[in-house]
Formats: sequence, C-alpha cells, structure tokens
Amino acid sequence: MVKKTFAGPMYLAGFIIFFVIILYTYTGEWLSWSRKAAEEAEAVAAIRCSGHGRAYLDGLVLSGNEDHPVCECNSCYGGLDCSQFLSDCAADANSGDPYFLEPFWMSHAESSAILVAGWHRMGYRYSDGSYISELLVKHIHKLHDMVGNAVTDGSYIVFGAGSAQLLNAAVYALSLSPSSAPAKVVTTTPYYAMYKMQTQLFNSLDYRFEGDTSLWKNNLDNSTRFIEFVTSPNNPDGMLNKAVLDGPNVKAIYDHAYYWPHFTAIPAPADEDLMLFTISKLTGHAGTRFGWAVIKDEAVYQRMIAYTTLNTMGVSRDAQLRVLKLLNFVLEEEEGRELFQFGYKTMTDRWIKLKEILSLSKRFSLQQIAPQYCSFFQKIREPSPAYAWLKCEREEDKDCYRILRAANIIGREGSMFSAEDRYVRLSLIKSQDDFEILADRLMKLVAEEQGHELLQTSSSS
Amino acid sequence: MVKKTFAGPMYLAGFIIFFVIILYTYTGEWLSWSRKAAEEAEAVAAIRCSGHGRAYLDGLVLSGNEDHPVCECNSCYGGLDCSQFLSDCAADANSGDPYFLEPFWMSHAESSAILVAGWHRMGYRYSDGSYISELLVKHIHKLHDMVGNAVTDGSYIVFGAGSAQLLNAAVYALSLSPSSAPAKVVTTTPYYAMYKMQTQLFNSLDYRFEGDTSLWKNNLDNSTRFIEFVTSPNNPDGMLNKAVLDGPNVKAIYDHAYYWPHFTAIPAPADEDLMLFTISKLTGHAGTRFGWAVIKDEAVYQRMIAYTTLNTMGVSRDAQLRVLKLLNFVLEEEEGRELFQFGYKTMTDRWIKLKEILSLSKRFSLQQIAPQYCSFFQKIREPSPAYAWLKCEREEDKDCYRILRAANIIGREGSMFSAEDRYVRLSLIKSQDDFEILADRLMKLVAEEQGHELLQTSSSS
Repeated sequence: MVKKTFAGPMYLAGFIIFFVIILYTYTGEWLSWSRKAAEEAEAVAAIRCSGHGRAYLDGLVLSGNEDHPVCECNSCYGGLDCSQFLSDCAADANSGDPYFLEPFWMSHAESSAILVAGWHRMGYRYSDGSYISELLVKHIHKLHDMVGNAVTDGSYIVFGAGSAQLLNAAVYALSLSPSSAPAKVVTTTPYYAMYKMQTQLFNSLDYRFEGDTSLWKNNLDNSTRFIEFVTSPNNPDGMLNKAVLDGPNVKAIYDHAYYWPHFTAIPAPADEDLMLFTISKLTGHAGTRFGWAVIKDEAVYQRMIAYTTLNTMGVSRDAQLRVLKLLNFVLEEEEGRELFQFGYKTMTDRWIKLKEILSLSKRFSLQQIAPQYCSFFQKIREPSPAYAWLKCEREEDKDCYRILRAANIIGREGSMFSAEDRYVRLSLIKSQDDFEILADRLMKLVAEEQGHELLQTSSSS
Repeated sequence: MVKKTFAGPMYLAGFIIFFVIILYTYTGEWLSWSRKAAEEAEAVAAIRCSGHGRAYLDGLVLSGNEDHPVCECNSCYGGLDCSQFLSDCAADANSGDPYFLEPFWMSHAESSAILVAGWHRMGYRYSDGSYISELLVKHIHKLHDMVGNAVTDGSYIVFGAGSAQLLNAAVYALSLSPSSAPAKVVTTTPYYAMYKMQTQLFNSLDYRFEGDTSLWKNNLDNSTRFIEFVTSPNNPDGMLNKAVLDGPNVKAIYDHAYYWPHFTAIPAPADEDLMLFTISKLTGHAGTRFGWAVIKDEAVYQRMIAYTTLNTMGVSRDAQLRVLKLLNFVLEEEEGRELFQFGYKTMTDRWIKLKEILSLSKRFSLQQIAPQYCSFFQKIREPSPAYAWLKCEREEDKDCYRILRAANIIGREGSMFSAEDRYVRLSLIKSQDDFEILADRLMKLVAEEQGHELLQTSSSS
C-alpha cells in the first residue's frame, strides 16, 4: 500500500521530466530578449498575401480594428490579401527589381534570417579601424573563388552603397591627375543610363561625360585621358562586352553586376584592373544597397576609400551584416550551387518561353545570344539574360515603347540606353507573376499580328 | 476499482495539459524559422566581455576549438574577454563614436531588437514607388513634434546615408543656377572638417569651398551666391550658432546633428529652410548610416531626391528598418523621455566631472556654456556638450595636441577645425571606460601642473 502511493507521483514526475526534455529538444534553448522580435517577424511572414505579394515588418500598418502590416502585392494583383487579379492592368517590365530570387529566400528562411540587437555596431568603425568588415572582405574573396567569375587574389576590395556609389567613386579615383583637362568618361551604346546621369550630376572639373566610344575610337591622342565603362554582360542586351578603347591614357571600369551564373555563361574568371559587383543581382537584395569594387592598384583603392569615406562614411553596417549572412549561405558548397541552379533555371525557363512566343512574330525580334561553355556549371549552357532587348522590326514602328504600351506592356525606351527607340528593354528578373503577365500580353500581341497577316493573306489571295 | 484505474491517467493528462499551457504562456508561440537567428543573437549577446567590450554577430570569429565571435574591447582593455586593463595605453578622445548610449540599448534589448527575414525588401522601391519609407517619414515628423526641436509641418523629408551624404546633396541642390560662377560654400571657424573636405572632393563647377564667413561678411555683392553651413550646436564647441551671412543670394544649411536634449537646451524649435539631422547622435547608431533633411522648398527637395537617387539609389532599406524600430521606441512617450533623460544625465555628469578637474588648472580651459531654459525638460538645465573644446592657455603651449599626447591623451587638433592648434577637441560621447580614462589622465596632468606650481612657489618664496 505504501509502495503504491509512492509509485503514482514517481510515475508522474518521470513523465513530466520526459515531457520537458522533449519540449526543450523541440524548442531549443529558452529565448529571452530576442523572442519578441522573432515572434513579430513570424507573425508578419504568416500574412500570406495569396502568394501574389508579401507583407513586411516595416510595411504600412492597417489602422483600424486589426493593426498589422498590409500586403504589398505584385503588379496586377490587388485587394487586402492580393487575391484580386486586375485583368486590365499593364504588364510592368520596366524596372530591374530582382524579385525572381524572392521565392528562393522564402524557402530558405531559417538560414537567411538575422536578429539584430539594439546595440549592434553603434560606432563608426570595425575593430581594425576601418569602415569595412574584414570578415565580409574574406567572404567576397571566397565567393569569387567558388564561382570562378573573377580573379581577386592580391586585389583590394572597397564597399559601396550598391555598385551605384562605386561608379562615381571609380571615375573619381581614375580621373585624378596633374593634367588640367578633364578626363573623358565614355561607354558603348546601348548603355545603362546611370553612367551618364551620375557623371553629369557631379559636374566635376576632373571628368566629363563624352558619350559613345565610337566617337573616340579612331580619335585617341596622347594627351587626352579616357575612362571607359564596360558593362559585361551588358545592360540592356546581355552581351559580354570588352573595352573598345585601348591606349596608355585609357582606363576601364568593368561593371560586372550581371556576371553571375544566373544570367550568363562564365567562360573564364574576369581579371581586370577595376571591376564592380553588386549583391543586387547576385542574391537579389537590391534594397540592401551593397556593392563592391575589386581593384588592383593600391593608389586607386586608396582614392576610392577616401571617396566612400567622405561621401557616406562607408556603407551601413546593417547592410554589411545582412550581406555577410547571405554570403555565409552562398558559401556553403551545396546551398551556393542551389542558389545558382535556381537562378539559372528560372532565367532560362523565362528566356525559352519568351523566345517561343516571339518565334511566331516577324514584327518583334530578340537579341541573339549563343549557347556557351560555362566554367561554373561545367557544361555548355543556354542563354538566360536578365533583360530582353526587343526590337520592333517594321519600318514604321519607330517608337517601339509606344507600340508595346498600347498592348498594355511597360518596357524601358531604347533612348534611355542612348539607342534607337526602335528598341525596348523588358525586365525578366521581376516576380513570376510579372513575367507571366508579360508573356501573356506578348502572346496576345503576336496573335494579333498573325491574325492580321492571315487576314491580309486571305484578302490578297 | 474501475473508477480508480481511470482516475490515474485522467489526473496525469490533466496535469500535462496544465503544464503545456504554463509552458506555452511562458514561452509564447512556438517559433519556427526565426528561432535559429534568435538563438545566434542571444548566444553572441551572452559573451560578456567583462563589461569592457562587446561581441557582435559579425565579429571576427575565433578559429580554434571554440568557434564564436571575439570580444571587441573598449580602449585600454584587452585580452580575450576584455578583462585586462592596459594601464599604459592612451586615452582616445578623438572620434565621435556615440557609445555613451550603448548601455541604454543593452538595457532595452527586447524593445530594440529586430529580426530580418531573408526576403525582406529585396526590391528597389517601397509600395509608393519611392526609395523612402513613408512610415519612417511619419515617425520623423512625430519625433520632432515630441522633442520640440524642429518645425517640420509642411516640410519635405529626404533620407541620406548619415547626414554626411546630405551635406553635399544640400550643396548640390542649393548651388544649381543659371549663373556660371560657382557658388561659394562657407562656414564659421571653428568648424567640422567634413564641410571643406567633402566640398573639395567633388571639385564641382557649380560650387567651391571658400573658407570662413568672416572673409565675406562685409564683402557681399549682388552677383555672388553663397551657401553657408551653420552648425548648431557647433561641432566642436557646442555653441548654438546662427547664420553669419545675410542677403538675397545667401542660402544656409543648418546642421542640427547635435540639436537633441542630450547635448543642449532646446530653447525653441528650429524653423530653417534646410535642416539636417542624424540618427548617429540621437540614438547613437552611427554605424547604421542614417540621416535626414527637413526642407521647405519643393524644388530643393526634388534636387536632393535626384542627388540621393543617382548617388546611391537611396538609403539601405535595412538601415531604414533599423531606424524605424528605434524611433518606434523613442516615440513611446515614457521610453522616449527615458532615452533623453539617460543621455542628458550621462552627458551632464561627464561635463561636471570635467569642469571640476579643470577648475584646478590655469594651464587648460574649457569653452563656456551658460545654463539655459530647455523647452523639452521644461526647466533651466546645465550644459552637457558632446565635446570639450580645450584651450592651452600658456603662451608657449601653441601645440596643445602635442601636450596632451605627451600626457597619453589623444584629442583632435584645433587645425582640423580650421582653428589654432592651441585648441583640442576631446570627445565626451564615447564609452564610460573611455571617459573615465580620459578623466584620470587629465587629473594627473592637472596634478602635475599644481605640483609644479607648488614647487615654483616654494622655491621663489
């Protein structure tokens, strides 16, 4: 009898201990101060937005009965939960927002999240006295080694708020000279408008934007200094450009924003004196504003450091932390490959579909990119450019943007790239919704063209 | 008997349910993908660094048996856990790192932490198409209303990577004119070196740095355009400066980085055409690189937007998220007051101690700041400047920096502020350790002076 009354509580206590162990194992350590932030993030992530949008921690908050962030919908979706398809809306293929990688990070939520403590890096400098995280520099070297897209051994790294900040930092660094005449900043058409707009904005005594390289190719003299922007792959057309000008007074800035396996074959590691990269088109985190320059010459490096120091006192330490976490992920052998596989697959699928649609058209054509051996995938791979560089082929279709606009498609005018308006850039790196709506609109446009031709054929026969 | 065998498990089940409810209540919701990040952050925060340093999530990692971030120690502390006092080291009072607020955020860990999901704001734009969080703009208006340090109703807000980026953005915006002569950028000695260095860096056709306002005060003509930097409170000396130049061609940029109750009385809300603020000296998050401009004129606002767009495509969305969380905290009535009380108390304590030490000296003097009515605290308050502007009074002590350096104190030379080297700026906003070592070194220096005087008096008597 005594034995029996003792066994009951013993049994109970044993069970409770077992249960606590199970719970502890399942939930990990007890969290204290970080729990609230984690709960907030999960609550926001749980707002599903019907798969056609997402809610953010800093989204505008519904003020009413329910006080939580609102869904930000993909274009052509609306309603509080993005469930309404807005059938008449325009397919917006203008911007280079890299949302094609968003689903990738959503499915790798655990390994890409960071919790930032309130006292994280309040000061200006890292422990080595610089504005640049040494750990992140190491990661960047490893990244290029792993991808094989750039030789960085022995080179210096400078960070910028996106590669945008580094464009002018590089122009500044390369233009300094005892010579009084400003350096001529040039590039090859079609080109990314930022080069021109930014160079003109600063209106410097040291450099001037002087347009297309073709104006200068056979016009080099010994006294004029040139700074040539070379974009490879090129924005808008995806070509693996090389410098056009060559000479002792010519310096090149290689913009390699798109030189990643998502968008292009990597025939060999780039090995130029000054190369720019950005996280925006690698992991898709354009909003974080983080880019880097790989520089061979120490004096150029020092000048770019001086520029970024006086311009913004370096890059946000919060942005650097975020990028560190993302690169940590990419540098894990398998995960890294998975990112590039995902990026490449998404982009080729889109390109194949686009080509298929336009193969039926005589009115519109796409740039030609040949399949090429890629040292990263170790195989010949199909093209998968970030943008379609669409041409309106008909003589009378001089304003291709307007023609697409009438078909409810928003592209970016050729003239924005200093090219003919017979061309339009269509962004292929936005969300899957964006791409599908674009494809749908293009299909209709091509179908109309064919219906029209059929009509003409039958009426002329 | 049947009843009894049934009661055992029932009793057990009830207990388990009760236990689960207790656990659930204690631990909140179960976390899934966010848990790992939260655990990582707590593990790093748990590295104590003996109270003389801190470990960061992105700190350099010990590679050895234990793979965790290393402590980053306050100056004069060393060793793996910052427990070693390095008695011979220099008191570093050079930089403006605002670590004085670090303990505040450590003690408000829960309400200042954020968890950033891997897919947070990957795109370039907020839902309104801008690079600027509308919610954060609203917070900034509320903040100025609450503190009463600036009139912002009807004004425009532009964000920058710290106020650093906004200095040149403002110069750019104010200098545009059909006139061909560059605008003269001027300020009043002693002044923050950044104005000069940054303006000269960009070497623009539109503006030139032209030194001290005193050169131009009685020299204004109708054709010359001036842009005057007015720093209030002034860096280095804490004075509530007003514009010196006045005329139809004079525009002022008010740098109000230090116009917060930590550092100065707020006699009245500032109400200038163009005012700059920064989070660095408000919450102490200098590393986040976030500042804002308050602008009355729409055309000036548009130009500053154009500048920040072309320079960096806006401010890191991660920095904006962090600032939103911090301002959320400050805007809570009680917490906000607590931050300013803490900041004010810390800074007055330091100032009182410094004054006490130097009151015994004839060799060194401090700037004079009068107690003044503060509309925020609604009382007359004591001075609490961010920096001491120390003067070496002896005729022969022309190089005050060198004299302090010999006493193991690192200040910033007067010449860095275009003032005489008889002056040195000493930073009072670093960590408590930094301040105490500074105070200790100054005490020794003053004691030596007195010992010397005593010796002189006794030998001459």
